[in-house]
Amino acid sequence: MAVISLMTDFGAQDEYVGVMKGVILAAAPEVRIVDLCHRIAPQDVAQGAFMIAAAFRYFPAQSLHVLVVDPGVGGKRRILYAEAEGHRFLCPDNGLLTMVAHNAGLTRVRRVSNRALFASHMSRTFHGRDVFAPVAAFLARGGDPGELGAETAPEGIERLADWVPQIKADGRITGRIVATDRFGNLITNIGAEFLRNLSRDAPQVALQVDIGQQLTTHLHDAYEEALPGDVLAIIGSRATLEIAINQGRACDRFEVGPGDRVAVWRG
Amino acid sequence: MAVISLMTDFGAQDEYVGVMKGVILAAAPEVRIVDLCHRIAPQDVAQGAFMIAAAFRYFPAQSLHVLVVDPGVGGKRRILYAEAEGHRFLCPDNGLLTMVAHNAGLTRVRRVSNRALFASHMSRTFHGRDVFAPVAAFLARGGDPGELGAETAPEGIERLADWVPQIKADGRITGRIVATDRFGNLITNIGAEFLRNLSRDAPQVALQVDIGQQLTTHLHDAYEEALPGDVLAIIGSRATLEIAINQGRACDRFEVGPGDRVAVWRG
Amino acid sequence: MAVISLMTDFGAQDEYVGVMKGVILAAAPEVRIVDLCHRIAPQDVAQGAFMIAAAFRYFPAQSLHVLVVDPGVGGKRRILYAEAEGHRFLCPDNGLLTMVAHNAGLTRVRRVSNRALFASHMSRTFHGRDVFAPVAAFLARGGDPGELGAETAPEGIERLADWVPQIKADGRITGRIVATDRFGNLITNIGAEFLRNLSRDAPQVALQVDIGQQLTTHLHDAYEEALPGDVLAIIGSRATLEIAINQGRACDRFEVGPGDRVAVWRG
Repeated sequence: MAVISLMTDFGAQDEYVGVMKGVILAAAPEVRIVDLCHRIAPQDVAQGAFMIAAAFRYFPAQSLHVLVVDPGVGGKRRILYAEAEGHRFLCPDNGLLTMVAHNAGLTRVRRVSNRALFASHMSRTFHGRDVFAPVAAFLARGGDPGELGAETAPEGIERLADWVPQIKADGRITGRIVATDRFGNLITNIGAEFLRNLSRDAPQVALQVDIGQQLTTHLHDAYEEALPGDVLAIIGSRATLEIAINQGRACDRFEVGPGDRVAVWRG
Repeated sequence: MAVISLMTDFGAQDEYVGVMKGVILAAAPEVRIVDLCHRIAPQDVAQGAFMIAAAFRYFPAQSLHVLVVDPGVGGKRRILYAEAEGHRFLCPDNGLLTMVAHNAGLTRVRRVSNRALFASHMSRTFHGRDVFAPVAAFLARGGDPGELGAETAPEGIERLADWVPQIKADGRITGRIVATDRFGNLITNIGAEFLRNLSRDAPQVALQVDIGQQLTTHLHDAYEEALPGDVLAIIGSRATLEIAINQGRACDRFEVGPGDRVAVWRG
Repeated sequence: MAVISLMTDFGAQDEYVGVMKGVILAAAPEVRIVDLCHRIAPQDVAQGAFMIAAAFRYFPAQSLHVLVVDPGVGGKRRILYAEAEGHRFLCPDNGLLTMVAHNAGLTRVRRVSNRALFASHMSRTFHGRDVFAPVAAFLARGGDPGELGAETAPEGIERLADWVPQIKADGRITGRIVATDRFGNLITNIGAEFLRNLSRDAPQVALQVDIGQQLTTHLHDAYEEALPGDVLAIIGSRATLEIAINQGRACDRFEVGPGDRVAVWRG
């Protein structure tokens, strides 16, 4: 039973996601559809790129991840099919696969151009319904990716610039906030492996964190290790540095959010 | 495998939608349930009427569309079953089928009155759970619509007044905004066929649009054809006129929304 | 076909719910997953405790209800498995089962401690993915609850204090608002049986209701029995007292919400 996950910036107020599912089920009645997330900020390709990279490995092998954050819909942007670590991806070529490519590498990349697989009547504005859903159903029914369009080199796809954390000459690690979650936690792109490096000789080394303002903390093992209202650093569910407040909202306290820069160094 | 789509104004903050699904699955374990939308504005029958008319054709044939926007719950309003173009509908008789009836015509309309199909203990406030869900499960299991209640003439059902676009003597087309989507786009009920008529002899004829304030634009083929921040007209995913701002939110710029009037004429 | 319902405070803006479903489907591909609700207020265990008690009976027998409102994640709180009236529950031991236990009684309560069932790599912050989802999949595949961990007495689990309505010596019934729904209705924990007692000799006895300010009304049979804008009392879908405004939002008028106290007496 094929699994399709959907990640879009369509939100829940409109019929868009429901209609995509209708189109998929009409052509592939047996498929299992899972909503990964539909609340990507409108047209925020970077947020989507980090989310799918953090999430895809938890789905069944051979899942098809359909990613529709598509500010260029109806224009000249191209559409991609790609594979990585036994998972499959379908999305506009606008940087959405940047972090999957960086973390896992892409194989069998194709430009999706076979209009025979699209809706017979194409809208200008809703390729989720008219392109991505029917192509997803085709693949979920066991269709051959070779029919989608010409193969292309992974190096040629669009990528976001400047979204990989770095170690500076003075030992500072710089990165970005890539999401704030429902609890107000600030999720960064600085992986646990960077921090392990920083604090290799002492499990509770003091960390200096600069997120617009500077704070001192250390890596905690649970939110409740900090007093209610106190700031803490923790390795979050994406295995990256997260800045949180026990029973509070770090994003409100610090007034920062996705895209803002973070620096961390040994205190 | 039967498909049920659900459209309600229940939102996601309460247990209402989940409980409806529990009731359906308890009686019809094999059915596929798809959320069309649960964010219809509370009790906004018109918004629901346009959404279902725009969406139903994308679902598999014989899908059952359960529509619960029901300000009269527990009172005297009646409950309808109807069919249109091979799709099935179950909803309160309050205007929700106005646009499906207008666009597609209704057949086999019945008043749902067979209390043996309802929950044995009926609440006053939640017929989604106590009426619509068990009746939907009955139909999804192959139950005979004839058991629901007496047949009735399609002309007798409740309809919204004043929601069909018109061509005025001076050639102006008047209609309404029927939704603003997550991207702030203003979705009207003025179908592409009206506009084609208006601009038959020139693909990029100037259009005057009055949405409280007047603006001049033309029909674009993609959002990105306009400069970022510029207003554009486009045929949207419902095949109607949409007023949008490339990378912006038209609903905020113009401070209009569902129900407000729109006029379009040749510039 | 096993059914899993999910109730969390994860909201919809992050990948958390989607990833839980991915983990469940990877291990139990045939299971049906139903979203009960993901909009429990962050860390609001009481709201979750009332919702699950109101909802679980509507799901198929033997459903597994996975409840993740978990402010103590990564700390010392324990994890529970329990059964009640042929339903199964999996949740942190923090009071979430208070009202199910109060209304239905718990049996076969176990502390979930068998780490062989958890993810091989455990995060500190996301036991929904690393503990609850894999254990749920194990149970959905027919796994023996005996393997989860040691049995424990139902009396030993954590319970919320002070959340059961009372009858005072002067006949007043005191309780709490436990939810405000999307329509602004104030849902209390005062069951219909209390009110029937109060108004046994007259169906439309005047009720005094104190929700910070005092109002006089009576039990209505439908919202529309009150004039638009008028306050009414009604037995809501949870079979408890609800304070509503016909076509209005009671929660805005009275500026009260979950946790606030309510008193009702005969007028």
